[in-house]
Amino acid sequence: MTTLHPATRAADAPGEAPSETPEATMAALGRAAREAARALARAETATKNAALAAAAAAIRARAPAILEANARDLAAARTRGLKGALIDRLELTDARIEAMARGLEDIAALDDPVGAVMAEWTRPNGLVIRRLRTPLGVIGVIYESRPNVTADAGGLCLKAGNAVILRGGSESFQSSTAIAECLSEGLARACLPPGCIQMVPTRDRAAVGAMLRMAGVIDVIVPRGGRGLIERVNAESRVPVFSHLDGNCHTYVHAAADVGMARDIVFNAKMRRTGICGATETLLIDAEVADAMLPAILAPLFEAGCEFRGDARARAVDPRIRPASEEDWATEYLDSILALRVVDGIDDAIAHIERYGSHHTEAIVTADEAAARRFLDRVDSAIVLHNASTQYADGGEFGMGAEIGISTGRLHARGPVGVEQLTSFKYVVRGDGQVRP
Amino acid sequence: MTTLHPATRAADAPGEAPSETPEATMAALGRAAREAARALARAETATKNAALAAAAAAIRARAPAILEANARDLAAARTRGLKGALIDRLELTDARIEAMARGLEDIAALDDPVGAVMAEWTRPNGLVIRRLRTPLGVIGVIYESRPNVTADAGGLCLKAGNAVILRGGSESFQSSTAIAECLSEGLARACLPPGCIQMVPTRDRAAVGAMLRMAGVIDVIVPRGGRGLIERVNAESRVPVFSHLDGNCHTYVHAAADVGMARDIVFNAKMRRTGICGATETLLIDAEVADAMLPAILAPLFEAGCEFRGDARARAVDPRIRPASEEDWATEYLDSILALRVVDGIDDAIAHIERYGSHHTEAIVTADEAAARRFLDRVDSAIVLHNASTQYADGGEFGMGAEIGISTGRLHARGPVGVEQLTSFKYVVRGDGQVRP
Repeated sequence: MTTLHPATRAADAPGEAPSETPEATMAALGRAAREAARALARAETATKNAALAAAAAAIRARAPAILEANARDLAAARTRGLKGALIDRLELTDARIEAMARGLEDIAALDDPVGAVMAEWTRPNGLVIRRLRTPLGVIGVIYESRPNVTADAGGLCLKAGNAVILRGGSESFQSSTAIAECLSEGLARACLPPGCIQMVPTRDRAAVGAMLRMAGVIDVIVPRGGRGLIERVNAESRVPVFSHLDGNCHTYVHAAADVGMARDIVFNAKMRRTGICGATETLLIDAEVADAMLPAILAPLFEAGCEFRGDARARAVDPRIRPASEEDWATEYLDSILALRVVDGIDDAIAHIERYGSHHTEAIVTADEAAARRFLDRVDSAIVLHNASTQYADGGEFGMGAEIGISTGRLHARGPVGVEQLTSFKYVVRGDGQVRP
Repeated sequence: MTTLHPATRAADAPGEAPSETPEATMAALGRAAREAARALARAETATKNAALAAAAAAIRARAPAILEANARDLAAARTRGLKGALIDRLELTDARIEAMARGLEDIAALDDPVGAVMAEWTRPNGLVIRRLRTPLGVIGVIYESRPNVTADAGGLCLKAGNAVILRGGSESFQSSTAIAECLSEGLARACLPPGCIQMVPTRDRAAVGAMLRMAGVIDVIVPRGGRGLIERVNAESRVPVFSHLDGNCHTYVHAAADVGMARDIVFNAKMRRTGICGATETLLIDAEVADAMLPAILAPLFEAGCEFRGDARARAVDPRIRPASEEDWATEYLDSILALRVVDGIDDAIAHIERYGSHHTEAIVTADEAAARRFLDRVDSAIVLHNASTQYADGGEFGMGAEIGISTGRLHARGPVGVEQLTSFKYVVRGDGQVRP
């Protein structure tokens, strides 16, 4: 094992670094990150990839130690009475450890965005202007109990040339620390500074507050977790945030939809995985086809155990549908529950989405090209789809490789946030003595 | 004259709207802006251009009224003892009014960024993914005494499909209001909602605080003004900010520079206009050529009345150079003053820029391609130039048309902020029934 940076070495101890204030701890991490970011911005692609490969190897080699750390986290979580879904997110298995290692290798295989020419043009005076991708600088990632985010986020930030400060959930502190050690080993083997990937070495919640005030040191904060975390970060942060809100996604079945296609898309959009942010939470269907199409669309969903909350017109079609409250339209169930509203045509559907949606991902099912165009044009969401499942809202499915999340913000990054979205740019201008008239 | 929106009609009175709290006033503007933004996002290019042309015509037609409003502002400013440069910025003339009108026509002539396909690819499963430019939404522009910003910023935001809330300096309140009325007339003639361009109808400084808290209503704040304004906005804003800090720009004369080219570029970079953000404030020159090159480089600058603040090695070359303090390296003079440091090669120059610069614009003069590449690669500024004047830091000079400023931030917009930088994007996905495995 290679020597670790002091900021991560504290993690070798069973607890956390106790000696400093959270502000002092974070300031030290910030200084190391900024210095590392300068070195990393110029690092060769091969060097970054070597670090990722070595980190993957370290994760495989240290799997027993990671599982042991995870067992300590799990025991503590059960003692504190954590429930099923939270325990499931926290738990690591051999398969999940292998997936983390392979994830790092997949990131290594992605194109390096840094240095890519985004645009190039020549001015009449002969100046050649190029817009080149550069790293963003220092990224702060704040996440909850999934320890694998440590490897995913660390790897993505590294590939894009950014230093990263990782702040995992306190439940997964031991597991995340064990994983971060593997990343540190990867950096060391590639002779990259340890400040490239650092984990906050304390469970103290004040460290999060300190991170959110580090404007000028951290360039962007990426929160990954539930609504509570996102709202705290958005409310408190003095650093720009890539908001990864969960999604209240809609599928709209237009009057001109093919009923078989609608059935398959709605089923997939709701049931393929109910817990992901691209899962459809509300089904909208045109009134003129509700009677004809709903039975076919609902049958496989009922069969799979899906529960429905509908408006009066929907309930008139099928009495098994429970009444929806106003709150249902705004709820992200992340479960086998689907809200269902009968609408009066496309503009009614768009208005419903505008009112209750979260600007994440919405789909229309229709064979009418003009209707599709109107929907795709007018719905103000990061991702809009025609005749496809909302569960395609995913960086991997977009061909962008791994993603750190889906942004519902409108600035800089929108939709899947992969390595390319973790970059900035600069203008490089070449002349031969031009002076401005 | 067409009917104006209540929010701007208040401006017809000599003072401001007195009846509501600033928060209530701003909330009403915000609601109108969001609604207008929805309409504007779908507006045809021809409609937006018609509004811009009609606004330009209104500015020409109402020039006497604008000059009269400006005379009232000027009289009040002189009574309060405002100084030369401030008065100059505030003052409108026939030529400046014509320039405003022409500026709007120039914006109309720009390509419409909205709807442009930024990227398009097809996935193996047949999904066609397109990344399309969309407006950002609602932009808040906070500026100081230059009344022409009203027309420039209003026109740029409109062209990019954004609603804008303009908050001008209190000194230019009457002038800006008269100009905003012309923009409103343009909107009305093109049948666009008045909420597309609104001016804050009060001088109350609390309105700025209210704007900065309108997260979710205003999508981005663009401050234009001096350091005090920018710092207040950055410190207080809960809304993302495109920071338009002024620039502490550097020109570095490398040992392999052509002395005649260095002389011309340095003279232009400092003296063409000393008051713009792309003006060079510090000259760095390699020690091995300082004796040989500095006399030729400094001669025309001294002749033009430029004053120098230099380190000991520079002063050894020319005794007319005053001693520089530590503060000089970080100062943006915006005047005929140039800081001058003799450095020990390219890495020393880069380190100086990293330490004291503002990440705006820096230039290297050299005939050595490897040195140029090293400088362009390693200097972390929005714009880096080789063998050209830093005064090219300008959206117009980049061929981007009018700009709302130069951003020194790293997120979303960096460098000149023109119509394209005032947009967001969304992903439009076309399928034929795909469901995710």
